[in-house]
Amino acid sequence: MKKHNFSAGPCILPQSVLQQAAAAVLNFDNLDLSLIEISHRSKNFIAVVDETVALVKELLGVPEGYSVIFLGGGASLEFCMVPYNFMRQGGKAAYLETGTWAKNARIESELFGETIVAASSADKNFSYIPKGFDIPADADYFHCTSNNTIFGTQMKSFPKTEVTTICDMSSDIFSRAINVADFGMIYAGAQKNMGPAGVTMVIVKDELLGKTGRSIPTMLDYRTHIKAESMFNTPPVFPIYVSMLTLRWLKENGGISWIEGVNQAKADLIYGEIDRNPLFVGTAAKEDRSNMNPTFLLTKPELAETFDKMWKAAGISGLPGHRSVGGYRASMYNAMPLSSVQVLVDVMKDLERIA
Amino acid sequence: MKKHNFSAGPCILPQSVLQQAAAAVLNFDNLDLSLIEISHRSKNFIAVVDETVALVKELLGVPEGYSVIFLGGGASLEFCMVPYNFMRQGGKAAYLETGTWAKNARIESELFGETIVAASSADKNFSYIPKGFDIPADADYFHCTSNNTIFGTQMKSFPKTEVTTICDMSSDIFSRAINVADFGMIYAGAQKNMGPAGVTMVIVKDELLGKTGRSIPTMLDYRTHIKAESMFNTPPVFPIYVSMLTLRWLKENGGISWIEGVNQAKADLIYGEIDRNPLFVGTAAKEDRSNMNPTFLLTKPELAETFDKMWKAAGISGLPGHRSVGGYRASMYNAMPLSSVQVLVDVMKDLERIA
Repeated sequence: MKKHNFSAGPCILPQSVLQQAAAAVLNFDNLDLSLIEISHRSKNFIAVVDETVALVKELLGVPEGYSVIFLGGGASLEFCMVPYNFMRQGGKAAYLETGTWAKNARIESELFGETIVAASSADKNFSYIPKGFDIPADADYFHCTSNNTIFGTQMKSFPKTEVTTICDMSSDIFSRAINVADFGMIYAGAQKNMGPAGVTMVIVKDELLGKTGRSIPTMLDYRTHIKAESMFNTPPVFPIYVSMLTLRWLKENGGISWIEGVNQAKADLIYGEIDRNPLFVGTAAKEDRSNMNPTFLLTKPELAETFDKMWKAAGISGLPGHRSVGGYRASMYNAMPLSSVQVLVDVMKDLERIA
Repeated sequence: MKKHNFSAGPCILPQSVLQQAAAAVLNFDNLDLSLIEISHRSKNFIAVVDETVALVKELLGVPEGYSVIFLGGGASLEFCMVPYNFMRQGGKAAYLETGTWAKNARIESELFGETIVAASSADKNFSYIPKGFDIPADADYFHCTSNNTIFGTQMKSFPKTEVTTICDMSSDIFSRAINVADFGMIYAGAQKNMGPAGVTMVIVKDELLGKTGRSIPTMLDYRTHIKAESMFNTPPVFPIYVSMLTLRWLKENGGISWIEGVNQAKADLIYGEIDRNPLFVGTAAKEDRSNMNPTFLLTKPELAETFDKMWKAAGISGLPGHRSVGGYRASMYNAMPLSSVQVLVDVMKDLERIA
């Protein structure tokens, strides 16, 4: 029996995607060859990359003038690629500090030049999203993190600014409508809503590149990968293929407007229970609650052992919170059905009944 | 029917590995979860990384004082990580230029400081390995490429030098015995003899790191990944897992001494035919011929159409040579059985009979 997989990432993927991915590992496109033993330059795999790019553009409504590329190395590698490609020599950048990954991104920028923390929620263990802060008009870019998996917060809107906005959307990309034109660059590690670990998607406005005056190592220069259509070197074949399958699944089910509704229903269900049930309390400011990673504590910590036994018995996995917040984190990425969230909510109600 | 897969990479993997990989995509370790939807920090996946490291160390006889790590981004990303981590401020590096990838590595070094071409075989389209050249004693490191997939050459020995030797072994790692202690660092993209595309293995002598005086972006500093045991950020889960399966297969069959013999038998078979059959001629200098990627031309190019039909009819795929050499390239990585090479040699003999 499949588990109800609340893992924070790598995380649940659609069952149909897993089945197709497993089949392709044995025989891809009826070539009598495995997906993972063919040339990345074969016409069959080039078709995979092309379709994945087209799906990204269609699902997110990517405007003209933006490129979509797939890179290895993880979103953490983008933390240095962003200043390499966007911070002018002697320029500066502004960062919004909303959690661990946002901070890690900012630290890399400091190696390249002046780095301003526009605002931080470190004062309250990153339990809220700062608002009403200033972004210096002369910054080369403003960097933010749309969803903070560890702390369970999510930016519900993005600051209006003339400064180029660069956003790490690793943990909520494809979960809701965004206006790509508001961003100079969006990046996301695949391993939440897009596919398996091992590939990072970058959506970048072409005209912003090549203006820093820096010498950029070839592999760290976005123009290298745009020009080569993600084929400058051997790309992560399997993660790209599974991403394509997942985006096909998303499109076939109704695209972003469909999944945004599903995700809101899941969030309403669990946050409703967290707020109703006296045994639970949320850790994030209500208006900044993440629809991807609800985080919550037991009001009576002595019930932890009982609760843990109950959700495990219900077939739930991946529920413990990150050590820096404690308690529980019910990550509910796109592929998680409402019915799995209902199973968790039923366990929460059962705990109240017996406690 | 499975093809005889002579692809230059990504390339053939053992059939038993593909079957186990496909099964794990559906249900890993009987967890009722897919390999690609569990946390990389779960004990089941940490066990995968630990076993892969242990297999690398055992198979290659890695001495004490070296670390084995797995990175994303491809071997091409190492081209800038090598000077970042090994070239002192104001220092210099020496490169052996034996092909396209060797040249690409050297180009990245030039961004960091003085870069000497110790020797090059560009004068004869990289059809041989230069020998008897000098490596400046004050170089911070000497970089070479052990096997050149495009040009079909392989270093049969490595220069004796006091200078730290760094070798890109992407296309012949695990194919023959090497003495790791002769190298300061060895790196290899997985997608030839180790696993699928998307992960790079690095074996590095710890005491050499942290001596350049450079500020290194976190993700480009080998010490980051050594300290975090390849878990600083989410690693490429599936490529690492399949690499573990492939290395298990190698160990179970007899390890490096076994595969070195198999690879020599395959090379003897095809090079024997290339030299015997008047319709074929090798492109690489005989003493430098690659046991991984034999490259050869038809002596009567007008027979190409006939030959191409014949090998395709025999179930062979991936035989066309790279555009910069032309002709044919019969890549024969570890997982290719002698019987597949025999099928190709039989086709070559058949061509002679009918021509």
